[in-house]
Amino acid sequence: MIKMYDVLVIGGGINGCSIAYQTASRNRRTAVLEKNTVGSEASSAAAGMLGAQSELEEYSPFFEFARRSRDMFPELVPELEEKSGTAVSYIQNGMVKIADTPAEQQRLERMYYFQKQAGEHVEWLQPEVVKTIDSSITGDHYGALYIQGDGQVKAPELTKAYAGAAVREGADFYEYTPALEFIYENGRVTGVETPQGRFYADQIVLAGGAWSRFIPPFGGELPPLIPVKGECVGLHSAVPILEKTVHASDFYIVPKPGGSIVIGATEREGEMGKEVSAEAVQHLLHKACRLVPGLSRASWQCAWSGVRPQSADHKPYLGQTAFDGLWMAAGHYRNGILLSALTGTWMADLLEGKTEEQEWVEAFSPRRRINRKEEEIIGADY
Amino acid sequence: MIKMYDVLVIGGGINGCSIAYQTASRNRRTAVLEKNTVGSEASSAAAGMLGAQSELEEYSPFFEFARRSRDMFPELVPELEEKSGTAVSYIQNGMVKIADTPAEQQRLERMYYFQKQAGEHVEWLQPEVVKTIDSSITGDHYGALYIQGDGQVKAPELTKAYAGAAVREGADFYEYTPALEFIYENGRVTGVETPQGRFYADQIVLAGGAWSRFIPPFGGELPPLIPVKGECVGLHSAVPILEKTVHASDFYIVPKPGGSIVIGATEREGEMGKEVSAEAVQHLLHKACRLVPGLSRASWQCAWSGVRPQSADHKPYLGQTAFDGLWMAAGHYRNGILLSALTGTWMADLLEGKTEEQEWVEAFSPRRRINRKEEEIIGADY
Amino acid sequence: MIKMYDVLVIGGGINGCSIAYQTASRNRRTAVLEKNTVGSEASSAAAGMLGAQSELEEYSPFFEFARRSRDMFPELVPELEEKSGTAVSYIQNGMVKIADTPAEQQRLERMYYFQKQAGEHVEWLQPEVVKTIDSSITGDHYGALYIQGDGQVKAPELTKAYAGAAVREGADFYEYTPALEFIYENGRVTGVETPQGRFYADQIVLAGGAWSRFIPPFGGELPPLIPVKGECVGLHSAVPILEKTVHASDFYIVPKPGGSIVIGATEREGEMGKEVSAEAVQHLLHKACRLVPGLSRASWQCAWSGVRPQSADHKPYLGQTAFDGLWMAAGHYRNGILLSALTGTWMADLLEGKTEEQEWVEAFSPRRRINRKEEEIIGADY
Amino acid sequence: MIKMYDVLVIGGGINGCSIAYQTASRNRRTAVLEKNTVGSEASSAAAGMLGAQSELEEYSPFFEFARRSRDMFPELVPELEEKSGTAVSYIQNGMVKIADTPAEQQRLERMYYFQKQAGEHVEWLQPEVVKTIDSSITGDHYGALYIQGDGQVKAPELTKAYAGAAVREGADFYEYTPALEFIYENGRVTGVETPQGRFYADQIVLAGGAWSRFIPPFGGELPPLIPVKGECVGLHSAVPILEKTVHASDFYIVPKPGGSIVIGATEREGEMGKEVSAEAVQHLLHKACRLVPGLSRASWQCAWSGVRPQSADHKPYLGQTAFDGLWMAAGHYRNGILLSALTGTWMADLLEGKTEEQEWVEAFSPRRRINRKEEEIIGADY
Repeated sequence: MIKMYDVLVIGGGINGCSIAYQTASRNRRTAVLEKNTVGSEASSAAAGMLGAQSELEEYSPFFEFARRSRDMFPELVPELEEKSGTAVSYIQNGMVKIADTPAEQQRLERMYYFQKQAGEHVEWLQPEVVKTIDSSITGDHYGALYIQGDGQVKAPELTKAYAGAAVREGADFYEYTPALEFIYENGRVTGVETPQGRFYADQIVLAGGAWSRFIPPFGGELPPLIPVKGECVGLHSAVPILEKTVHASDFYIVPKPGGSIVIGATEREGEMGKEVSAEAVQHLLHKACRLVPGLSRASWQCAWSGVRPQSADHKPYLGQTAFDGLWMAAGHYRNGILLSALTGTWMADLLEGKTEEQEWVEAFSPRRRINRKEEEIIGADY
Repeated sequence: MIKMYDVLVIGGGINGCSIAYQTASRNRRTAVLEKNTVGSEASSAAAGMLGAQSELEEYSPFFEFARRSRDMFPELVPELEEKSGTAVSYIQNGMVKIADTPAEQQRLERMYYFQKQAGEHVEWLQPEVVKTIDSSITGDHYGALYIQGDGQVKAPELTKAYAGAAVREGADFYEYTPALEFIYENGRVTGVETPQGRFYADQIVLAGGAWSRFIPPFGGELPPLIPVKGECVGLHSAVPILEKTVHASDFYIVPKPGGSIVIGATEREGEMGKEVSAEAVQHLLHKACRLVPGLSRASWQCAWSGVRPQSADHKPYLGQTAFDGLWMAAGHYRNGILLSALTGTWMADLLEGKTEEQEWVEAFSPRRRINRKEEEIIGADY
Repeated sequence: MIKMYDVLVIGGGINGCSIAYQTASRNRRTAVLEKNTVGSEASSAAAGMLGAQSELEEYSPFFEFARRSRDMFPELVPELEEKSGTAVSYIQNGMVKIADTPAEQQRLERMYYFQKQAGEHVEWLQPEVVKTIDSSITGDHYGALYIQGDGQVKAPELTKAYAGAAVREGADFYEYTPALEFIYENGRVTGVETPQGRFYADQIVLAGGAWSRFIPPFGGELPPLIPVKGECVGLHSAVPILEKTVHASDFYIVPKPGGSIVIGATEREGEMGKEVSAEAVQHLLHKACRLVPGLSRASWQCAWSGVRPQSADHKPYLGQTAFDGLWMAAGHYRNGILLSALTGTWMADLLEGKTEEQEWVEAFSPRRRINRKEEEIIGADY
Repeated sequence: MIKMYDVLVIGGGINGCSIAYQTASRNRRTAVLEKNTVGSEASSAAAGMLGAQSELEEYSPFFEFARRSRDMFPELVPELEEKSGTAVSYIQNGMVKIADTPAEQQRLERMYYFQKQAGEHVEWLQPEVVKTIDSSITGDHYGALYIQGDGQVKAPELTKAYAGAAVREGADFYEYTPALEFIYENGRVTGVETPQGRFYADQIVLAGGAWSRFIPPFGGELPPLIPVKGECVGLHSAVPILEKTVHASDFYIVPKPGGSIVIGATEREGEMGKEVSAEAVQHLLHKACRLVPGLSRASWQCAWSGVRPQSADHKPYLGQTAFDGLWMAAGHYRNGILLSALTGTWMADLLEGKTEEQEWVEAFSPRRRINRKEEEIIGADY
């Protein structure tokens, strides 16, 4: 079997599906190759918070990119829900970023000043005020940064919604179809080998998350991606325990519509399996129940994990690679859900040669020079 | 443990939850006792069609009741989704009622004339026209009745949405808490015994579906309810196969948002277990694939069953029973999802003594005299 | 529908199935009524340890009963496996009872002397010796009682094996068939009402575990049974972490053949639902990982719960009740798996009037006078 | 991370695990790389019949190899169960091979004469005699070949038992660790790249089933393997319906100890996904219920699929490949469970240079010349 497309996306995660939705909407014949099923890796494991821009303490192209992606959701979500028939559960319940150490307090205060200056709606809450925002947060802490309009989605549903909308726009999805090897002819990547035969396309977009560099013969020459496994646990309570999303220095608690509560996430560099360790379950429950004691009454639901793709400088690789014909949209690390909205349109623009934001082109280029110091750090960690 | 309430609902199915939502909204202290978990029986097994009124061939209080309940959905669903945080997937994709025998053709034509006269938007489709409404219906048939605006929901989600909204309005839910026996004092039902202790209430509403008559000491004296097990199968297709809901004489096919397809349902009188027989799976698949051959390419998902509570005359029992203090809202048979909207407000009105529609009070009274002929038929079946 | 049997067992848990296996083997027409499915409650939640006799510090009929039941397993298990085709995974991997406090040390030492005197193969291990028996036990403690030959089974499988062997011997099983009410005629219990009709029998054996007293009209007059929910977690490790069963004062760790590891169990008096609290998961993991640190590397599998039926004096009720025709085999508390072997033959003997051990008849009679002091304690707890 | 072994097995299916068990038992440092989890593909999907040799109509090395593998089970199974703690449910319930067409009757009669001559215990049953062997087989047919001692196992359990025994013998298992690319140095395959780093070994055994040829850079040059998806359904009946395994021309029915019944299997050449089509479910149920009508009363359990690796001449590839250092044990097609016993010892012998059966070495060599006619057939199919 031989198939020909305009755009071939490798990877049916949230960003691959978003890109396919945008290119198919622009009448480009689009296919998605997925080694397993749509959204079966990191996209389904994510807690669905949309507040990554609030991690930052200073202006950067990444800050602007994240903020613009966030601002696309109010309009994009109804569009996807309508086209796909999948409800995404987008709500803006607000986030409380807890300072659980004095050092974290200083970091969050810096964030607060920067965010305020950048025009974001943030407040600083003294320790005794936190309880007035969400009365369930009764553990010890040093105050909190409060982002009232902070939003979230159900990440597995959003992934399905992108995919469903892409199908509606004419994209073809091939599940259980791994890309086994790039086809390289006359100095150009023209297709990939799969168990179902060869797929050829004018433009190939590698959106394989932590698996992106595993495709021979030159996957290993693409820019570095470190797998960082994150383990989560899910609780449930019919009676609401917590209203706001709570984010502390090494864990978070996300109450979802319908009564589920997600507690995440560990950071295990270099691990790729799906196992969840007993240690992670205990650690997450212990931390979360100490800060929000009401959680100890919630019912246990399940535990799961996902592997985030971490780039060398923690910013995604978006753009053309050093190999003609091969583009990349990977390395979203912990921000894949948030960035999915703009990743789709931005990549569709790049593929059509239509981009205007030269600053972003360079900032996210897979061919960018990674700051040496960061490379060393990564090397040491790994 | 002893608990006191204004209203005690026995049964956390869709109608019990709807009633609890309405009484709690009117500031009555409300509790729901559920032997297992919310929506764990027939409510979760239903395909979620809202077209039962289209079953009828002549005017009756039941026809009007069903129609009015249906017309509540466009306003009720957003209200429930907002209060509960649960998406209900309400869509109006239209229904094609297929005449698969000449006799069925005659019956559907009678329905068509009646519905048209009653002001419903229905069309009669000649056999060759059916394919123009949904090109996937290529099996043999004798034409179809088409109801363009016919709607559906995801029934398990709607049940959870009623329950979630009820909790938000202050209702208490006790899961895993079966009603073991009525407490009868001074000529009045005043409460129930449970494994967790006694619950007392001014008004007790029995909404236990097919299990309603199993509570001693006088459950067996309540009006007859025949359990009718229905078995279903679920398929899935990422690529849309069918757009319209298809209803034939002894099976139906309901395409759900997101790619699931429900095929139902057998009618096994007197059976209450959760097993699905091999025979049912084969029968449903065979019938559905013959009418809509594209379904044979869909992926298998799962099979399940639910037990519908059938009253002696196929109309629900809504109102006060022969026992003081004890009310009933059961016997919705195959129409529990559709009727849930009006059942909630109607029962809340009855409990407050506020009803105006005397015709309905009598038509659905648990104390009504059941037409002898129907009783005999039922007796024979059972 | 009306059904007639010699023996009607109410409850398809491990003891109901064991009794049915024995009575059917003796050619008595036997039926089992089960409200849900065979083994769906406490029997499937148990960790399957067979060492309850080692809990005791002095001679008693209960000690002898437990010991004799335990000694039946080596012969009974192959018989059940052969008749049912279900593998039970009976192994004798030994148990280390850890003294995790000085008080527990004293209690275990008393046990040690008593067990030794009673002819059991037990050893006392000084703290530094424990590691030589199982090198994974590296947490702090005050020594341990070691029972080398202590055995275990997979409890859900053993329950299925009893049921399968009973079917092979001719017993009928009715699943999804709750006993709704006793039929009491002429001073005698002659049958039960169920949703499927009436079942009559010469002898009715109530083996409903924690649900035994919930059948009207006089279930509440049977001797007291307190539900005690126990929550467990399951881990898995392909590489063996622990060989011996470890039992500490308020938790235990049971390594199962095939790599699963069960950690149990909480004791929640008066609770009957199936939820597992976040608190229980954290507590069990914390305790287990502190004593056997290697467990923190194991993979998370699942969490579950079961409800144990606790009698007023912690010994089972085995024998005729105060109601003619009604027998009881319930209240096995935490020893249901161990006692199931002898419960089956003992009850079958009692039903045939063949018992010789008058001491046991009295010790376990449902009509025995419960020591007042214990009754008070129970009352206070409940 | 760099790892060094004597033997590196690629693929944790039943044959990879069996080989690892044998090489580890011979004190060779052994590792297994598995892309997902042990037994997650075809090995867990198999019905576990051990009668493949009875497919044959004439003597061949394949016939002898299969027969000898079968004869290893009575001794091997207890050894694996003991070392692994996993029960394999090996029973010899007999197989009835039904002639469902006159042509099939002729084929089976030829088989009968050949098998008898070869010393196998087979009988020919006239149509009216079949029911006396298993009274549930009441559909129409043309007689049957009866193999009284024919055996079966639970295939997922047998795979786990090989793996568990291998771990006990010292083998290392790396799950979620795909082989991404062969390392080829100085004319020799010396290792493989994986996401967890490089694995080097003196001898590398490719046992990746239908996935074996997908490893670059020269996987595609290995001998042909056609994926043939097989779909199955599982039923359950507490009351035994069928005792013997029934095999007809395009489906089979395997009753398992404990009450499960497996009906298989379709043959979809070139398909590799895990989906089960609605069509397959219907087809299998229809065929099985027509031959054994009692099955229509059984309860539905589940549907699943697996991908068998079909070699060009339907015999496995066992031995050294054209690439130095790389061995192959793949292409077992529908006989992987049966052949697993001898595949393990045979490959361990080959790796040590100890084989005596020169006929088998040539018959199964991956470098053998495949008969042209068969190649054409395969080509046409694919």
